[in-house]
Amino acid sequence: MATSLVLERKGQLALRDIALDQDLSPTDVRIAVHTVGICGSDVHYYTHGKIGPFVVEQPMVLGHEASGTVVEVGAQVTHLKPGDRVCMEPGIPDAASRAAKLGIYNVDPAVRFWATPPVHGCLTPQVVHPAAYTYRLPDQVSFAQGAMVEPFAIGMQAALRARIQPGDIGLVTGAGPIGMMTALAALAGGCAKVLVADLAQPKLDIIGAYPGIETVNIRTTPAAQAIAEATDGWGADVVFECSGAAPAILGLPALARPGGTVVLVGMPVDPVPVDIVGLQAKELRIETVFRYANVYDRAISLIAAGKVDLSPLISATIPFADSIAAFDRAVEARDTDVKIQIRMPD
Amino acid sequence: MATSLVLERKGQLALRDIALDQDLSPTDVRIAVHTVGICGSDVHYYTHGKIGPFVVEQPMVLGHEASGTVVEVGAQVTHLKPGDRVCMEPGIPDAASRAAKLGIYNVDPAVRFWATPPVHGCLTPQVVHPAAYTYRLPDQVSFAQGAMVEPFAIGMQAALRARIQPGDIGLVTGAGPIGMMTALAALAGGCAKVLVADLAQPKLDIIGAYPGIETVNIRTTPAAQAIAEATDGWGADVVFECSGAAPAILGLPALARPGGTVVLVGMPVDPVPVDIVGLQAKELRIETVFRYANVYDRAISLIAAGKVDLSPLISATIPFADSIAAFDRAVEARDTDVKIQIRMPD
Amino acid sequence: MATSLVLERKGQLALRDIALDQDLSPTDVRIAVHTVGICGSDVHYYTHGKIGPFVVEQPMVLGHEASGTVVEVGAQVTHLKPGDRVCMEPGIPDAASRAAKLGIYNVDPAVRFWATPPVHGCLTPQVVHPAAYTYRLPDQVSFAQGAMVEPFAIGMQAALRARIQPGDIGLVTGAGPIGMMTALAALAGGCAKVLVADLAQPKLDIIGAYPGIETVNIRTTPAAQAIAEATDGWGADVVFECSGAAPAILGLPALARPGGTVVLVGMPVDPVPVDIVGLQAKELRIETVFRYANVYDRAISLIAAGKVDLSPLISATIPFADSIAAFDRAVEARDTDVKIQIRMPD
Amino acid sequence: MATSLVLERKGQLALRDIALDQDLSPTDVRIAVHTVGICGSDVHYYTHGKIGPFVVEQPMVLGHEASGTVVEVGAQVTHLKPGDRVCMEPGIPDAASRAAKLGIYNVDPAVRFWATPPVHGCLTPQVVHPAAYTYRLPDQVSFAQGAMVEPFAIGMQAALRARIQPGDIGLVTGAGPIGMMTALAALAGGCAKVLVADLAQPKLDIIGAYPGIETVNIRTTPAAQAIAEATDGWGADVVFECSGAAPAILGLPALARPGGTVVLVGMPVDPVPVDIVGLQAKELRIETVFRYANVYDRAISLIAAGKVDLSPLISATIPFADSIAAFDRAVEARDTDVKIQIRMPD
Repeated sequence: MATSLVLERKGQLALRDIALDQDLSPTDVRIAVHTVGICGSDVHYYTHGKIGPFVVEQPMVLGHEASGTVVEVGAQVTHLKPGDRVCMEPGIPDAASRAAKLGIYNVDPAVRFWATPPVHGCLTPQVVHPAAYTYRLPDQVSFAQGAMVEPFAIGMQAALRARIQPGDIGLVTGAGPIGMMTALAALAGGCAKVLVADLAQPKLDIIGAYPGIETVNIRTTPAAQAIAEATDGWGADVVFECSGAAPAILGLPALARPGGTVVLVGMPVDPVPVDIVGLQAKELRIETVFRYANVYDRAISLIAAGKVDLSPLISATIPFADSIAAFDRAVEARDTDVKIQIRMPD
Repeated sequence: MATSLVLERKGQLALRDIALDQDLSPTDVRIAVHTVGICGSDVHYYTHGKIGPFVVEQPMVLGHEASGTVVEVGAQVTHLKPGDRVCMEPGIPDAASRAAKLGIYNVDPAVRFWATPPVHGCLTPQVVHPAAYTYRLPDQVSFAQGAMVEPFAIGMQAALRARIQPGDIGLVTGAGPIGMMTALAALAGGCAKVLVADLAQPKLDIIGAYPGIETVNIRTTPAAQAIAEATDGWGADVVFECSGAAPAILGLPALARPGGTVVLVGMPVDPVPVDIVGLQAKELRIETVFRYANVYDRAISLIAAGKVDLSPLISATIPFADSIAAFDRAVEARDTDVKIQIRMPD
Repeated sequence: MATSLVLERKGQLALRDIALDQDLSPTDVRIAVHTVGICGSDVHYYTHGKIGPFVVEQPMVLGHEASGTVVEVGAQVTHLKPGDRVCMEPGIPDAASRAAKLGIYNVDPAVRFWATPPVHGCLTPQVVHPAAYTYRLPDQVSFAQGAMVEPFAIGMQAALRARIQPGDIGLVTGAGPIGMMTALAALAGGCAKVLVADLAQPKLDIIGAYPGIETVNIRTTPAAQAIAEATDGWGADVVFECSGAAPAILGLPALARPGGTVVLVGMPVDPVPVDIVGLQAKELRIETVFRYANVYDRAISLIAAGKVDLSPLISATIPFADSIAAFDRAVEARDTDVKIQIRMPD
Repeated sequence: MATSLVLERKGQLALRDIALDQDLSPTDVRIAVHTVGICGSDVHYYTHGKIGPFVVEQPMVLGHEASGTVVEVGAQVTHLKPGDRVCMEPGIPDAASRAAKLGIYNVDPAVRFWATPPVHGCLTPQVVHPAAYTYRLPDQVSFAQGAMVEPFAIGMQAALRARIQPGDIGLVTGAGPIGMMTALAALAGGCAKVLVADLAQPKLDIIGAYPGIETVNIRTTPAAQAIAEATDGWGADVVFECSGAAPAILGLPALARPGGTVVLVGMPVDPVPVDIVGLQAKELRIETVFRYANVYDRAISLIAAGKVDLSPLISATIPFADSIAAFDRAVEARDTDVKIQIRMPD
C-alpha cells in the first residue's frame, strides 16, 4: 500500500493508498520513482475519462513519464544494480508476439502501457518494471531530463520513421509539446534546419529560442509560403504533421518537395479529408507514428551528448503533495506551459 | 504531315493529317509506331476534355502506350539501331532538373508527357523520341506486349514503392486495369500471393485466372474479412489501393498488418476522409505513386522471362482505320474489356 | 530417455538413449519429430568436431532442420494445438536482449541453436520448443518440405537482405545447397531471372531445371562474361556470393552493376582478399547474412503458394535406424546430392 | 588563353597560359574562380603522374574544389544570374545515362571530372560549367567555405550511405582530411557522438576540438576497446573506415554492433584481407562510397545553418601566384595541415 495519485473516475483525482501488484520477477527491477511528467493523455483521462476505446472503469494510478532510482533487482538482471539512476519505457509488450519478434513491439496488440486502462501508472512511490525496458541515465542527465525521455521518444520515433537524410529541411506543423519534441529530434537527427508553424506565438517563442529552429506564425504567413521561401520553391524534405488539425492535413501536399516525406504525428479525433491526388502528384511517402520502439537509448545518448537540451521545456516542477493542483494547472493549458513535472517525495 | 488520331475538342475525334514537329536531334530516334493501347486517360480527355489542370485547348493527337520499330537514329545514339523493336516511355523530363538528378524524374514538374495537353501523343505513324527513353524489346516480347509495358509500368512502380519483401501477402482493392497490373507486378515482384477485391465479378474472373491471385467479391465478403482469413487475423503485408473509392480508402487500416504498408494507386477526384488514427495505431507506411521512373527495363525483363504474361489482358486489337470506333467501345467500358489496342498500318 | 542420434565425439556417431531436458514451460510445445534434414554443419561437427569457436566437448544430439506434429502445448499457448503439423526455428534468442528487441534476434549473442555445442539438436523422437518459434504447416506443405524450411530460410534471409526490386537480374556464385536455396528465394522474391555459376555441372543441372534459372559453368564461361551478356554489359542488380571461394570474392566488383548489391552468404574459413576500390568504383552495397530472423512464415507462404518447390532438392529419404549411414553418405558429398533427410519412426 | 596552374607532367608544375575550351552552351554558366582547395588527388597527380587507370599524358590544369562568382549565364539558365556567389560540383555525368537516370550519376562510367586526365581542372581564372552542377552560396557562406563543399561532400556521401539513425554512435577510423569531413558530416547528420581513431595526435587534436567528437589515439588505446567502453560493449552503430589501412579493415567486425553498418571510405591501393565471417557473425551491412551525388545542396544547407563549421580545417590560404609553393607544401603533408586553399586573383 502506498500513497498514489489515483484517478477515481472522470474528473475526480485523489492522493490515497491503493494496493498495487509489485512482485519482483527475476527479470524485473524495483524503482523508487523520482520525477513524473504530466502528459496530455493523463489530463485527458482526468477530464474525459477515456481516450478512444480505452475507458477508465475503475480507479487507476496516473502517470507514465518517469525517472527514478533502482532499489532492487531480480535474480537474472545483469545490466542494472541498486543505486542506478534510470528512466522507464512505459509500454511492455509480449516479447514472443509476432510484432515484438519483428522489432516493432510498439504495435503489438497485447502491449500493456502505464496509465492506459486498466493498467496503473507510475505516480506512486515505487514501481516494478522489466529490466529490459529500464534504461540507465548517465551522470550528466538529470532526473528531470530523464523524465522527459518519454515524451521526447515520440519525437524521436517521428524522426526515425522520417528517415532523415543529413541536411534535410524539416517543417513541423503544430507547436504543442509533441511538435516541439519532434522539431528537436529532427534537428538533432540530421536536419539542417527545422521550421515550426503554429498560430500561438508564445509557443513559437519557446521553441524558436533554440538555434536551428525557425518559426512561422500562420496567422500572418501561410506555412506553404514560408517553406517555399526557405527552399527556393522546392518544399520541405520532411513535413512532420503534429497539429492533428484538419486544415493542416488537407494542405500537406503544398508543403513537401517532390519525392518528399510526410510524417503523421498528430492525432485527429475523426477521419479527416486528405488530398490524395495532391500527395500522389509529388509521389510523397507518408509515415505514421505510434508511440515508439527502440528509441530510449538513442534519446538518452542525444541528451547526454548535449545535442538536445529539454530543460527549457520544463515549465514547472511541483511536489507530489500538490499533484492534484498540478493536474488542474495542466487542464488550464496555459500557452506558456510545455511540460509540468511532479517531484515524488524522497 | 501524317494521318493521326486527333482529339479536336471534347467529344470529337478525327482521323486526319496534322503537322507534328518530328526533327531528329542527335540523341533521338525515329520510330514507326506498331501498336498503341488505349488508356483510361485517353478516353477521359475524349469524354471530358480535361483531367484536373490539364485542359485540351487545341487539337491533340491521343495515345501514349506504344511499341514500334526504330527507323532512324541520331548521331550520338549507340544502344539502338534501325530495325530494333522497341517500346517508349511517354514522359520526357528535363534531365538537368533537381528531381531528375535525384532519379525521380517522374515528379519533375517540367516533364512532358504524350497526350497530356498540350503535348501530342503517338497515335500517328511515326514518332521522334529520346533514345534514353526508348527500350529494345527482346525477341520473345511481341509488339502487343510491348505496348502493354506502359500500363504495366504503373503496377511496377506501385510494387517498387511498396518495397515488397519476399513472401509478403498482398491485397489489391479495385480490379480495374491498373489494379490488375498492380496485382501481377506484386506477384512477380515477390509476393507469395495477392488477393484482389472488387465488386465486378467479370473482372475478378479475368484476374483470378492467374495462378497466385485469389479474388474477393466484396458484395459477399468484406475485404477485411477475406484478408483476416488468409492471414490468421494478422493482415496484409502490403495493401495496394487501386479503386480510388472513398469507402475503400476509409477502410484501409483494417486491411494491413501492424507495421504494414499501404500504396495509394487509385486517384479519387476530390479529397476523401482518411482514418489517420487507424493508420497510426498500426504504424502503417503509406506510399503514393505517380506514373513511374526507371521501371521499363525491369518490366520488360519480367515479361521476357515469362514471369508476367499480359496477353490475357488484351481484350481486342483494332485497326487504326477503326480507331474512333475503338475509342467509342472504350467509352462503353464493358465489364470484360481490360485493354483495347490499336494496330497501326505497316 | 529416448533413442537419439548422438555425436559422441569427433568422428563417432551412436544411436542410443540419452537424457534430455524436456520440461514443458507454459509457452512451449512438445513436438513428435517427423523428418530431419542433414545440414553441412551437422556433417562438419561429425568430421571435424568443431566449427570455429564451437567445439563438441560432450556428447550432443545432432540435427536442426525439422518438422513434426504437436503433441502437447503449454498453458499459455494459443496459436497451436495438438495435432498441428509444424516446423521449428532452431535458434532461440533471449527475447529481452537488445538485438531481439530490435527484431534482429539472429544476432543476439545469447541465442541457443540446436546442434551447436553445447545445445542438443532434434534427431530425437520428441522435442520441446517455444511456441513462438514453432510454425504451423498448411495442408499443402508436406513434412518433407517442412523440414526444408530451415535451409531455405537462409536463402530467404539472403533475398531479404538484398532488398530485391521487382525485375532485378540476380547472379548466384556457388551451386551448393545454400546457393540453390538462395537462387530459388531470389527468383520467388522478385528477380526476373537468376544466373547460377559453378564449376560442378551435375549441380548446375539440378538447379538449372527450374524455369527462370540460367546456369553458367565457369570452367568454360567466366561469370563476369555471362552476366555481361545477359545484361548488355550493365551487370547484375544483385550478386549472391554463396561459394565462399577466394577467387569468387575477389572478382565480385566485375559482376554487379553500378549501384548494385552484393550479398555475402558463403563463409570463407579465413580472411580473404577483397578488392575494395573495385567495390567503391561502382559504389556497391554489401550485405552479410547470419542465419535468419522473421522469415519462416514468409518461406512457408511461398512454398504453400507453389511459388517455390523444394521437393526436387531432396535427394534421399533415409529411415532414422539408418541415420549413421545417412551421415556417412553425406560425408561423401556426392555431386548429385543436395539434401538428405532422415525419417523419424512414427 | 589564361594563366593557369598546369601539371606539365609528373613532378612538373607551371603557371602559364593554356588554351581551354570555354564556349558557353545555353545551359552553362561562366564563373570567375575565387578560391580553390588543394586535394590529395591533385597532389598525387603531381607526385605520381597517375591515379590507378588515370594517367597524365598531356598538360592538365589541376584543381577541382572551387568557389567563385557567376559572370555570364546561358540562354536557358533560370536559377542563376551574374553576380551570384557559387560553388561547383566537379563531375559532369551524361544525364541520359542509365546511372544518371537512376539518380546515381556519380557512378556513370561516362562522368567527366575536373583534373582527372584528360579533363582540365579549375585552377584557372574562369571556368564554364553546367548550371545544373553549380550551386548558389547563401550570404553567410564564404568563398573559402564554398571551396570546402567539395571535400565535405565526400563526408556527406558517407553519412548518407550510412543511413544514420538519430542518436547513433559513430566511429571514424583515420583522421585524414576525409576522415575529419566524414566525422563532421556524421555528427551533423544525426549521430549523438562520433569517435575518431588515429595514431597522429596533431590531427586528433584538430578534430577533437569540435564538440561531440571524441578522439582515440590507437597507439595507446585500441579502437575496439574505446568503442566498447563508449557503448557498454555493444559497438558502434556506424563505423566509417577512412584510413584505407589493412589492419583497420581487418579489424572492422570488432568495432560495430550486431546489425550495424560499416562505410568503406578509405581506398587501399590493393586488395586487402577482410574477415568476412566476422562481418557475417554480426550481420553487418557494408556500404561503399564513390565521390558523391545530390549532396551539394545538403552540404551547403548544413554549413549555412551553422551546424557544420569547416573554417578550422583551412590550414592556409595562399595566393595563386604562389600556387606551386602551395603544392610543394602540400607534398610535405605536415601533420597540422588539413586543407590548403589557393586564392585566385580578383
